[in-house]
Amino acid sequence: MNKTEPRTLPGFMELMPNEQILFNQMKEKIEKIYKNFGFLPLDTPILELSEVLLAKAGGETEKQIYRFEKGDTDISMRFDLTVPLAKYVAKNYGNLSFPFRRYQIGKVYRGERAQKGRFREFYQCDIDIIGDGELSIINDAELPSVIYNVFKELGFDDFTICINNRKILNGLFESLEQKENATEILRIIDKIEKIGKKAVIEELEKNQVSKESINKIMNFIEIEGTTDEKIQKLQELNIKNETFQLGLNELIKVIKYVRTFGIPEENFKVDLTIARGLDYYTGTVYETFLNQYREIGSICSGGRYENLAEFYTDKKLPGVGISIGLTRLFYKLNEMNLIKTNKKSVAEVLIVPMIEDLTMPITIANDLRQQGINTEIFLNDKKLKVKMKYADKLEIPFVIVVGEDEINSGIVKVKDMITGNEKECQIQNIVHLIRLIEKS
Amino acid sequence: MNKTEPRTLPGFMELMPNEQILFNQMKEKIEKIYKNFGFLPLDTPILELSEVLLAKAGGETEKQIYRFEKGDTDISMRFDLTVPLAKYVAKNYGNLSFPFRRYQIGKVYRGERAQKGRFREFYQCDIDIIGDGELSIINDAELPSVIYNVFKELGFDDFTICINNRKILNGLFESLEQKENATEILRIIDKIEKIGKKAVIEELEKNQVSKESINKIMNFIEIEGTTDEKIQKLQELNIKNETFQLGLNELIKVIKYVRTFGIPEENFKVDLTIARGLDYYTGTVYETFLNQYREIGSICSGGRYENLAEFYTDKKLPGVGISIGLTRLFYKLNEMNLIKTNKKSVAEVLIVPMIEDLTMPITIANDLRQQGINTEIFLNDKKLKVKMKYADKLEIPFVIVVGEDEINSGIVKVKDMITGNEKECQIQNIVHLIRLIEKS
Repeated sequence: MNKTEPRTLPGFMELMPNEQILFNQMKEKIEKIYKNFGFLPLDTPILELSEVLLAKAGGETEKQIYRFEKGDTDISMRFDLTVPLAKYVAKNYGNLSFPFRRYQIGKVYRGERAQKGRFREFYQCDIDIIGDGELSIINDAELPSVIYNVFKELGFDDFTICINNRKILNGLFESLEQKENATEILRIIDKIEKIGKKAVIEELEKNQVSKESINKIMNFIEIEGTTDEKIQKLQELNIKNETFQLGLNELIKVIKYVRTFGIPEENFKVDLTIARGLDYYTGTVYETFLNQYREIGSICSGGRYENLAEFYTDKKLPGVGISIGLTRLFYKLNEMNLIKTNKKSVAEVLIVPMIEDLTMPITIANDLRQQGINTEIFLNDKKLKVKMKYADKLEIPFVIVVGEDEINSGIVKVKDMITGNEKECQIQNIVHLIRLIEKS
Repeated sequence: MNKTEPRTLPGFMELMPNEQILFNQMKEKIEKIYKNFGFLPLDTPILELSEVLLAKAGGETEKQIYRFEKGDTDISMRFDLTVPLAKYVAKNYGNLSFPFRRYQIGKVYRGERAQKGRFREFYQCDIDIIGDGELSIINDAELPSVIYNVFKELGFDDFTICINNRKILNGLFESLEQKENATEILRIIDKIEKIGKKAVIEELEKNQVSKESINKIMNFIEIEGTTDEKIQKLQELNIKNETFQLGLNELIKVIKYVRTFGIPEENFKVDLTIARGLDYYTGTVYETFLNQYREIGSICSGGRYENLAEFYTDKKLPGVGISIGLTRLFYKLNEMNLIKTNKKSVAEVLIVPMIEDLTMPITIANDLRQQGINTEIFLNDKKLKVKMKYADKLEIPFVIVVGEDEINSGIVKVKDMITGNEKECQIQNIVHLIRLIEKS
């Protein structure tokens, strides 16, 4: 028979089982924290009507969409979890309770140019809080608390949640009579991390921003100091603009409550340079960085938006949300060997029968499984060495060999595959022994 | 602005949050048991090269595929999890440890004609055990144990795992010199549940099967009695055919070990009529039924196959697997109100602040969350009645109102939303109290 070469599309992550275990642990930890904050689960389809999914899209986004016809239906694959959320909330408005707090963890699709570390299929882990008409600013302070707890749960300590407010930036530009150029100026400022201060000034000059305005902008984005010092300096700028003052008051309140939510000073800061995209966010914005690995880029971003679903409904639905691009994050952390884990295997115990009648090995496995200990029995007829190698390769922590001697004596040896130590124990006490070793 | 009507494609399940909670619980319980048996996780892409995905497909399956071009690439959406597994194992053969035991829970796509209870996007929850060249028959006895534990975990008691062996059927047909007609005869027999005995006989007659052969076939599939009686009757048929005897011996061994794996007699049976598809399965086959709801059809099916990946590799890779079609199962159980659940909400506690300064309510929430109790704070400024209604609608079991009085006295009331009872307790003892109530 002619064989087809088994291969996977470029840009599609497909992990080996030992990596998949780590990936799933990260996903489960994120989900655990999302639930800990009482967010409701949602699981919208991966396919949507193109007309619905692309009601808002355009330009670059639309080019990347996987779009096709099936019968008479024009279908697209979702490229994020926000548009499906907007559709969902608009569609089910009457049946939802507000504020509507939902999490969704799922795959999204973008037909980007394939390159290393860029994925066409990737997981997003989103939470959003949607208000009906209004949404308290305290929600903007709760989300950093979710971010903080997620990355602590993932085993990180040295990370910073950067917080800003788009109204402060917009108000500044209004006060400089640069409102029309705001989007363009923001786009340029956003690049300061990448291209540096000098290049930013040059780009601003090219855009006909006056020397005086550039000075004020640079003074603004270069405000330094502790969080409280930054806020004080912002107040001292004494900018007579309503939007600016509104944004500053929001920021002050968010910072106050971020502290109440228990985030340590070292894990957040006010960063006046972050703008997050160009016109979607309207208030608080977030980016999160691993301080020792800034090159990874922001690992969790989001912010406040005025109106989630204006393309589907007249209802005003303000929201605030964050998103973790898990596939890329996993890829980077895995590449840099930074994933923290306790368990590297699914099975905690491998039962290795060295006897023809499998009654006793199976009975032992039944017992372990019933006690909630993940257990595998090596059922194929192989030499002991092969079976031990299997346990080793799967990094299963405990192996129990069951042969004639063990059945006759009722005593087995529980081998700890990491230390190599063996402990004898009676068959009925295996569960107890494994629990003991795991605790120690 | 012109609004696009927010709508979801027909045949795509999109649940309300309270249903999604139940769905996720079912999914998590299935995954828990799969892990309990030491199966490794896998998460292959939803998109594959059409050439790879459709190497084997044809006829009805191929018509249902969501297939499209992006750039020069001919892409298809997966229609099951078995073909991606075959690709994966063939591709990564050298890096996998055999037997390779994997589970995968994910969405698959079939563009079927839309009708009630039929889905175009649905979850499959699969496990397979793949051997390298050979695979012990005991694996065929372990899978019913997984099925048994899954449905027990899902809260069901009255279900039956039906077990058969295709070699017995094939051997019977060989002995009747009906080998060429085997596929057709199997197809007809497979319908006996639906169309009845008489119609089956008529169809067999139409297919030129002799009266004598039909008699033997009917005698065979009408074998009744306990499991052991059925096996005895099969032996007494005294069919001199190697395939038949091989299948019978396999079945005897599977039944022996099914018992060793601790499955009660009332939860499994030998059912000589099930054949599971036409040429894929080559040995043991399974179907599972809820006895009081046979109309749902088989809720977990699978079997043994000779060669997983013959379209991709020369390696002989025998396997045995099962699959649960979760989306349809959930739909049916939900419709019939048969889903068993303990928790109907994500949050266990709703903190309801009735005070402007949210410091204390947030501090209480911090504490509960740190102790692993999923907690939400109602952050919008609403009347008490509105906030209580919110808790009620989300079915959050405990509500704690925090106002001036509570902060001054340091004592809050924990309201049990099911009984309506309120218990007073000091703020620092809330976690303890909730744990106590939950246990009682």
